[in-house]
Amino acid sequence: MPREIRLNTFDMACVGHIQQGMWTHPRDTSAQYTQLSHWLDLARLLERGLFDGLFLADVLGVYDVLDGSADAAIRSGAQIPLLDPAMIVPAMAAVTTQLGFGITANLSYEAPYLFARRMSTLDHLTQGRIGWNVVTGYLDSAARAMGLERQMRHDDRYDLAEEYMEVVYRLWEESWGPGSVLRDRASGRYADPAAIRRIRHEGAQYRIDAYHLCEPSPQRTPVLYQAGASARGQRFAARHAECVFLNGGPAEDVARAIAELRALAAPRELRVFVGATLVTGRSEAEAAEKLAEYRRHSSVEGALAHASASLGIDFGRYAMDEPIEAGPGNAIQSNVAAMKRATGPAFTKRGLIDQFILGSRQKPMVGCVGGIADRLIEYAEATGADGFNLSRTVFPECLEEVVDELVPALQERGAYKRAYAAGTYREKLFGAGPLLAPPHPAAGFRAA
Amino acid sequence: MPREIRLNTFDMACVGHIQQGMWTHPRDTSAQYTQLSHWLDLARLLERGLFDGLFLADVLGVYDVLDGSADAAIRSGAQIPLLDPAMIVPAMAAVTTQLGFGITANLSYEAPYLFARRMSTLDHLTQGRIGWNVVTGYLDSAARAMGLERQMRHDDRYDLAEEYMEVVYRLWEESWGPGSVLRDRASGRYADPAAIRRIRHEGAQYRIDAYHLCEPSPQRTPVLYQAGASARGQRFAARHAECVFLNGGPAEDVARAIAELRALAAPRELRVFVGATLVTGRSEAEAAEKLAEYRRHSSVEGALAHASASLGIDFGRYAMDEPIEAGPGNAIQSNVAAMKRATGPAFTKRGLIDQFILGSRQKPMVGCVGGIADRLIEYAEATGADGFNLSRTVFPECLEEVVDELVPALQERGAYKRAYAAGTYREKLFGAGPLLAPPHPAAGFRAA
Repeated sequence: MPREIRLNTFDMACVGHIQQGMWTHPRDTSAQYTQLSHWLDLARLLERGLFDGLFLADVLGVYDVLDGSADAAIRSGAQIPLLDPAMIVPAMAAVTTQLGFGITANLSYEAPYLFARRMSTLDHLTQGRIGWNVVTGYLDSAARAMGLERQMRHDDRYDLAEEYMEVVYRLWEESWGPGSVLRDRASGRYADPAAIRRIRHEGAQYRIDAYHLCEPSPQRTPVLYQAGASARGQRFAARHAECVFLNGGPAEDVARAIAELRALAAPRELRVFVGATLVTGRSEAEAAEKLAEYRRHSSVEGALAHASASLGIDFGRYAMDEPIEAGPGNAIQSNVAAMKRATGPAFTKRGLIDQFILGSRQKPMVGCVGGIADRLIEYAEATGADGFNLSRTVFPECLEEVVDELVPALQERGAYKRAYAAGTYREKLFGAGPLLAPPHPAAGFRAA
Repeated sequence: MPREIRLNTFDMACVGHIQQGMWTHPRDTSAQYTQLSHWLDLARLLERGLFDGLFLADVLGVYDVLDGSADAAIRSGAQIPLLDPAMIVPAMAAVTTQLGFGITANLSYEAPYLFARRMSTLDHLTQGRIGWNVVTGYLDSAARAMGLERQMRHDDRYDLAEEYMEVVYRLWEESWGPGSVLRDRASGRYADPAAIRRIRHEGAQYRIDAYHLCEPSPQRTPVLYQAGASARGQRFAARHAECVFLNGGPAEDVARAIAELRALAAPRELRVFVGATLVTGRSEAEAAEKLAEYRRHSSVEGALAHASASLGIDFGRYAMDEPIEAGPGNAIQSNVAAMKRATGPAFTKRGLIDQFILGSRQKPMVGCVGGIADRLIEYAEATGADGFNLSRTVFPECLEEVVDELVPALQERGAYKRAYAAGTYREKLFGAGPLLAPPHPAAGFRAA
């Protein structure tokens, strides 16, 4: 039997998430992202396709590196305008019962007391189907929006994140001990104060003295995702993450990255999802034609605005064929790494446009359904990946094809589940209990 | 024709909201507050009853004034545990089309940049059915949870609130100007940077330099509610609020309070909702019997924990018949005022228990359906109130009776609408446009 493949979709509550410009395609409905029905239909579709999760990215601030201005991002709809992803989850939870929901939240700007309540609320309302992609942000524009001159330095952000995690673990795992909820109508006791602790923390960055506001939710701590590719980010992931996102790339590079992460996290198990952009057709020719059609709707301006911000390079300052050195600016290190893997450390604006105009982060995988199924299986075997994180192209057809054609092809090959496993998101992912277990640091805060 | 009466329900994402202990009644389902189905059923019920809105209260911190401890609040489930109310709204919006949703949010602890996005997101997802009850908090336990020694002083909180409102108005009304959203597939332009402004603000409390993250939502600024009863709170309400909550009480007192508020707010119109707790039956005798039955489930401990915190008086330090002077501690001034109206400035713990054990904030209105309908109409005429804000007793029967029996009785008397008006929450409330209009200060930030 081939290695089991799990599918997530990677989306964002905006018009242009990763493949910029697709909203201009006549069949694309991304511009309906402000309507609940858009999200309810998506959630139902993914659950029909037995997807493990729907992931919603988020970014605070705006992409203003290209030409030192946000104009290109605004014109092309590149991650602005953007809704709060957390708000969309409860509505999708109301029309599904199995699908997991991951949301990205930047801990740098969220008070732990309030954030912990929001996540507990989501875990209750979804009955244990919530995950959190832990990010620390990378945009100075977000810092300015929050009243600061600039953001903290990269490694300092991870120090802050370590402290933050301790505080939220204590709220989620320690504050309401086992047996704290009685719900005893006869005695009128809803909860037992003796089993509930006030969390007192005074650290370098955070100070808190409070009971967690929520009673224990099914998973207590949400399923933890991380995508950091820097050395510091990897250490953070190894300590905290249960699932990791990686950008796609050559199988041997991704295999090495996965092996490194797993070695760092051992003995804890990690689920690794690799980014993928699929363009499928009934034949190779049809798929190639579809790719060409999609590319005609790509936004070069949007892609450059997005790439400039996430790579920390102002492409406006370069001619088309001028070699570009990945600069020392603020950047998502995993994206810089992916870029260097794909193009070598020196690359050009033309190279970026050619390579990434459709398939930012990784080259699109293009082919007939059966061929794509075989390649995904082969790639998962070669890399040790647990599954793929699919970014959208022309929506919803890109996902409808996956659900209606690719998933059955993977099932025929014995590489995809035929039904959801029981239980919470964490149970579905790891086949064990709903709560984090030792040696994860969160488990240490929970009374036996 | 009698004055039109509008109905809101006043609820909270917790077991014990105002009438403490009701969850112990065998027919009460409040303890299912963590389940989405609980909220979806409520939203459908209210929409069937043509309620204007569902209001969700919120409080940060815990009630730890009674005996200097949170034990009583925790035992009785008095507003703890408590979910984040904002998260529940999108799910309820998915199963309704007309019902408005108001959420309480304490601006003291919410970064305006992030809060503005959350409210815009809700206004989008509900298609213009969101309201915000502006509060500044009153609990030191909330300040400690947020890493502070204690909260700001009462009037300072209102100064901060004034600055906060300016910042969020600018994000909601000014940042994305008219014509900023193009959604033009042909040219690939989603939005027009020339019509979008970066909001720069440097004030005593807040500093921001950012584009609002969201494109304009149907109402831009949510419908603004306020409940402040202090002189400073009244001035704030007169300047900002579109709707005001008042506690119930003798008609002449409430009439005076409403007239004062309207005079302060003029020429702006205010909708005023008066708190009410109804216990209805098919006859006066049945209603009285029901009241007695409900009261047997009241929690004295929960009521004292709640009252101690909201009045700023530790009732644990008083004997049952010892006169109590309303102290100088932190308190919700409107509740102190209501208490003094009902009992005179000196009252006893026994008096509090007798009077408020069911019907905290105001005495319950008890009677047969027709009698209650007549009394509500008479009260609205006498006070100039626009409607009532119903707090729950035994849930859901307390609201089912309103929807199935009281609403038809009000309709027969010509005092209640037979269908929703069209449009957003603001349009339904005021019969004008979806946006705030001059002389409201928010309108001044919107380009013509």
